[in-house]
Amino acid sequence: MTEAVHNIALSPDGSAVRIIDQTLLPGQLRYLDLREREELFEAIASLRVRGAPAIGIFAAYGVYVLARTYGPEEFFPRLEADCAYLISCRPTAVNLARQVERMRTLALSMSGAPIPQIVEALGREAAAIHREDIAMCRAIAEAGLSLLYPGDTVLTHCNAGPLATSEYGTGLGPLLLAAERGIDIRAYVDETRPLLQGARLTAWELMRAGIDCTLICDNMASLAMREGRIQAVLAGCDRMAANGDAANKIGTSGAAIIAKHYGVPVYILLPSSTIDMTCATGADIPIEVRAGEEIRSLWYEKPMAPEGVKCWNPAFDVTDHGLIAAIVTERGVIRPPYDVHLRELFG
Amino acid sequence: MTEAVHNIALSPDGSAVRIIDQTLLPGQLRYLDLREREELFEAIASLRVRGAPAIGIFAAYGVYVLARTYGPEEFFPRLEADCAYLISCRPTAVNLARQVERMRTLALSMSGAPIPQIVEALGREAAAIHREDIAMCRAIAEAGLSLLYPGDTVLTHCNAGPLATSEYGTGLGPLLLAAERGIDIRAYVDETRPLLQGARLTAWELMRAGIDCTLICDNMASLAMREGRIQAVLAGCDRMAANGDAANKIGTSGAAIIAKHYGVPVYILLPSSTIDMTCATGADIPIEVRAGEEIRSLWYEKPMAPEGVKCWNPAFDVTDHGLIAAIVTERGVIRPPYDVHLRELFG
Repeated sequence: MTEAVHNIALSPDGSAVRIIDQTLLPGQLRYLDLREREELFEAIASLRVRGAPAIGIFAAYGVYVLARTYGPEEFFPRLEADCAYLISCRPTAVNLARQVERMRTLALSMSGAPIPQIVEALGREAAAIHREDIAMCRAIAEAGLSLLYPGDTVLTHCNAGPLATSEYGTGLGPLLLAAERGIDIRAYVDETRPLLQGARLTAWELMRAGIDCTLICDNMASLAMREGRIQAVLAGCDRMAANGDAANKIGTSGAAIIAKHYGVPVYILLPSSTIDMTCATGADIPIEVRAGEEIRSLWYEKPMAPEGVKCWNPAFDVTDHGLIAAIVTERGVIRPPYDVHLRELFG
Repeated sequence: MTEAVHNIALSPDGSAVRIIDQTLLPGQLRYLDLREREELFEAIASLRVRGAPAIGIFAAYGVYVLARTYGPEEFFPRLEADCAYLISCRPTAVNLARQVERMRTLALSMSGAPIPQIVEALGREAAAIHREDIAMCRAIAEAGLSLLYPGDTVLTHCNAGPLATSEYGTGLGPLLLAAERGIDIRAYVDETRPLLQGARLTAWELMRAGIDCTLICDNMASLAMREGRIQAVLAGCDRMAANGDAANKIGTSGAAIIAKHYGVPVYILLPSSTIDMTCATGADIPIEVRAGEEIRSLWYEKPMAPEGVKCWNPAFDVTDHGLIAAIVTERGVIRPPYDVHLRELFG
């Protein structure tokens, strides 16, 4: 496939998590080594590392890197504190909580064992989480590609590519797999305000992979669909409720409503770890609201709205399950009714 | 009402059209005096002056300012050439063509008269176009306000305020009139990518008028409606077809589809001069496509998408008449079926 993007790895000596600083893309490809809990937290909060699966992998490596530094006396109290601290960073992202919890549970299950042995097990567990993600993304890409036809053009929102996960990504997986196989599938890429993950990251990833892509503003999807330019919408997911309601980057629900209006199918692609069966509907998913300056002044030469203007900047929204034509996980394609099929598979 | 915004006027000596350079707002309030045909054209093309009614008024004054400089020999050929030149600037905007045509027709109807007399008549005609717009906007605001309830919050898209017209504006007229009367009506303001007319202009105008407004990205309207934050969508219109299909700033149709999904009424406010009864449906309205750099790099410190990325940047879209709960003109509120009612009123 395309030149691989290694967005998350351990540093060679295992003392740091190494990431691509995604805030600098597409202008600059720079790697960061992160060791301190505050650095790890900040990297998630500032979206240096982002994408639901990626921050799960990142946080798992983070727990390992931190655990290496704890003394034997303080090991478990510090582990508990750091796990809670990392989880608190992004309340909407279920993978973050799940993978940190998996690391924490493993450590607790070994509580009698020598500390070095626990630390070593944590390192193996983080690597396993990473490997599992790569296999999952490949399976999601295969299942997703089965829904597309050669010559299709899809709409993407935000970034659910390799930078958000590992290798294939989720939402972009079918495109990358198609490119690998010489199948002509093209993309319109929503720029995805206010953080521009589509413009900065998705366009960069698709161009690297040699995929024909066209950047648009989020508000242009309706005209593109009216003109018959788009045959499917592909999106990732940050947390899915048991009824199929899907929390994803702000704007996904609007794109889905518009797609439904034009009869364009919406496919949500996600690892099944992103499905939260304890969450009955989307109404139970907390929505992170970020600083208004991201709308008013971030990236700009000068602020583009009046000083003191009130802003509302929710980072996610919930796409109603009724707007989703199919859910794609590593287990294959799931069709409605989602409450029934998700319960059968994951309940 | 609020501190008046004189966005278009003749310079005191009548030799230039004086405008607020809207590209510098909200950071800077600067007036420009424009005299040359290329300056007039550029001001429209670069959106220094913008808004369907405003560019009609502007072009009418422009025709007058240019006509003052023609010699008697060349008067009519130059008039014809300049009128065609100005009209060619923005194909989607019917007011531009209509008001220029009105100026041209007046001049032609006086073709035997002395040139100074024709020029003087053109000056009076441009001033009449301007006065008529002010009266029209006030009437639109009154009719539009009748559709809202105290305590409502509306969503605005692009800028259809005084800067786009004269005094009250069209889409913002009900808000400004409500504020004048002490009626509490609030607004969510779509920033309106890529040119950010909402962030730069609408937020500025509403804040000047003391109206409670909240800036959002275009892709946040869906969540705002899902949460019950919005009771109506108000938008202007650049050209309306005889069946009620409404061409307006890119993103209007998406907002309207989303509003319909949530049961939020969409009101399109426009002077009846914007209705083009020769245009059967929205499919007959040409859509201006602008340079991709407006998406990739305009306003930013550095380009926010990869070099060489393909962009598609349509400046308008068409909102299907079926999505519109009411059309508001200076003649009052029009309800569906629009083809019937528009033909009765304007056919």
